[in-house]
This record gives sequence, structure tokens and C-alpha cells, in this order.
Amino acid sequence: MNNLDYPIPVLELVTALKQLPGIGTRGAERMALWMLQGHMGEAEAIARTIGQAAEHVTPCPVCGFFSTEGEPCAACRDEERDSRLICVVEQATDVIPIERSSAYRGLYHCLGGKLSPLDDVEPEDLNIQSLVERVSRQPDCEVILATGSDVEGEATATYLHHLLKEMDCRISRPAQGLPAGSGLSHADTLTLMKALEGRTRL
Amino acid sequence: MNNLDYPIPVLELVTALKQLPGIGTRGAERMALWMLQGHMGEAEAIARTIGQAAEHVTPCPVCGFFSTEGEPCAACRDEERDSRLICVVEQATDVIPIERSSAYRGLYHCLGGKLSPLDDVEPEDLNIQSLVERVSRQPDCEVILATGSDVEGEATATYLHHLLKEMDCRISRPAQGLPAGSGLSHADTLTLMKALEGRTRL
Repeated sequence: MNNLDYPIPVLELVTALKQLPGIGTRGAERMALWMLQGHMGEAEAIARTIGQAAEHVTPCPVCGFFSTEGEPCAACRDEERDSRLICVVEQATDVIPIERSSAYRGLYHCLGGKLSPLDDVEPEDLNIQSLVERVSRQPDCEVILATGSDVEGEATATYLHHLLKEMDCRISRPAQGLPAGSGLSHADTLTLMKALEGRTRL
Repeated sequence: MNNLDYPIPVLELVTALKQLPGIGTRGAERMALWMLQGHMGEAEAIARTIGQAAEHVTPCPVCGFFSTEGEPCAACRDEERDSRLICVVEQATDVIPIERSSAYRGLYHCLGGKLSPLDDVEPEDLNIQSLVERVSRQPDCEVILATGSDVEGEATATYLHHLLKEMDCRISRPAQGLPAGSGLSHADTLTLMKALEGRTRL
């Protein structure tokens, strides 16, 4: 006799689900069995929703944030936003935390990554050309370089600064310092250094 | 201006993925964004695999384990297995750990759950009638009641024991005792009690 295993379509389903980020064999098996044990209706609805997202979601042709049907995104269409403020972020997903803070009323530009020669990410792999074109079309704008404060994020910001500094725009970077609600004792040396360097007069 | 959020198809995708077991808002968002950021091909393949599993995977008409196209499952078709051994498990998924142990060469019967009056699971909600019919067709068989050792699992085993004890079959339950590789100091009182009660002579 052969040791029994799940039928091929079940094993294929487990293998397929294992591709999802953060899902290992156990999690994929658990999802597959949940689907097969009486939740196939929900599973098929999920499958349809994936297909619909694939069909309708497109990057905004202006800023690279998520949009639908090839149209400019809700931010680029919003006439109440200050079109002379362009916040440059690494990923489209970085836009949402900024929006949730309600501290920003301008537009965005999603690079689609950060410069990283070790991973073969060169300037031409990012949406940098379209940023330069946007800035040249929008005189007297401010570009906020909100890339990460890790090595690649800093390098990307420095690169963009060099690229844009001769153009008709101001360039800034978000303040670095102590996070809200946290004390000195939890801050690492670099953060503390940045917080002291950038101290504000009261 | 309105605070920007993801377009509707993205939000729908997050809501859909959140239904998966063990996936919260964060995990669903992470999966959705993984799909939308350059993995839509994989995502559509996953969606197709779900549809295929929905179409082809069916419960085995004999034992309730996973099978395909309404056919008896690989265990029920395997003529090298001892057809006079029927191991009764709660869920189809309980079959795989038993198979992986390679300690069992018989057939299975998946109840599809355990008796639980509090959750409205009554005997007629489980595959019990088909078990009785199987046993009556297979004289001189042994039924191993491998339901869990929690309250509902024990109650289900007791119920099945009462139901089958007048029929032409032997009834057994897997041994309870100390798990392999574990010492006395880690065992709970009940396990220790069962291990001492069921001690084997050397």
C-alpha cells in the first residue's frame, strides 16, 4: 500500500497558497482545508475578487499610486490638494500612513522602490524620469523626499536631491527625531543624535 | 480634500482575503499589496487553482476523506489495505498525521466533526449512519475510535461505542499516555494518570 496523501488538486492548492507573503506550509494547508471543508463559496468569491483587482487596478499614470482603469488616482484628481507640494515615497503603500496622519495636503510621487545597487535597482528602474518631468512642469514647487531613513532610502534621497537641486523647486526631507510618546531611554544613539541636531527653539 | 484611501477593488480584495483563517487586516493588506505590486500573475494562478480545487475535489463517498470527481479516495481504492480495520476520525485532515506515522494499514471513516450539543452538532449532523452501514457490511471488523481526547471527542467515542457494541465488530481506542521524547516532569496530571493506568508489562 501507498501512504495516503491529499489528492493532487488539494496539494496544488497548498503549493499555490504558499506563495502568498507570510504564509508557510502550515498556514497554506490550513487555508486550503478551510476552503475545502465547507467554505468553497467564500474561496471562489476571493478568487473572483483577485481577478477583478487584476483587471481594474492600474497604477496612476501621474504619480504611481493605485488607481483604476488607467485614470489618474483620487489624489491627482483632487482639486483641493496643493499641486505645488510633491511628496516622494518609495512604495505606493507608503502613501496611506501619510494620509492617515492628515498632516499632508499635497500630491505624491511613488518611486516604486529605492536605489540599491546590490539588488540591481538602478535609477532607470524607478519612476524618477517622470518625477523630473513633473517638477519641470510645476514651477516653484516643493519636493519632500520621504524615502526611508535606511541606507538605500538615504542614498535615494541624496540622488534625487542632486538631480533636482538645479531645478525651480525647493527640496526637503521629513524631520528625524524622537518618536511621539517615547522617552529618551528607548531611543537609539542615531535617533538621539538626529533629535539633538534638529532641536527646535521654543 | 478627502483623505486618500486605496481604490475600491483594492479594499474589496483586502476584505476578501481577511476571511481566510489566521489572516487579519494587516496580513490581508500585505497579501493584496504583494499581488498588486507585480505579482498579479501569481495571484491569478492562485485564483485559478482555488477554482480547480472547488471543481474537482469531492469527499470520498465511502469514508469522507478528500477525493476527486466523486470517486472513492486513494485509501478506499487501495487493495493492499486491511479492509477489516476502520479508523474513525473527526476530520478528514486527521487522516494525514496517522498516514505519516506509517503505523496504520487500514481504512478510515471521517465523521466530519464531533458531537457537541452546545454548538448544535447532533449525531445526524455527522457521518455516523454511513459508519453503521459500513460496519454491518464488513463482518468481524475492528473499529478504532480515534476521536480527540477532549470532552466532545470522548463523548463522541462513547456514543459510537454504545451504537456499535451490539454489532459484529471489535471496538478500540488509541492508547493514552506519555508522548514520545517527553519526561515525567512535563506531563499533566490527567496524562500521567492515563499512562499509569495503561502501563504495559515488560
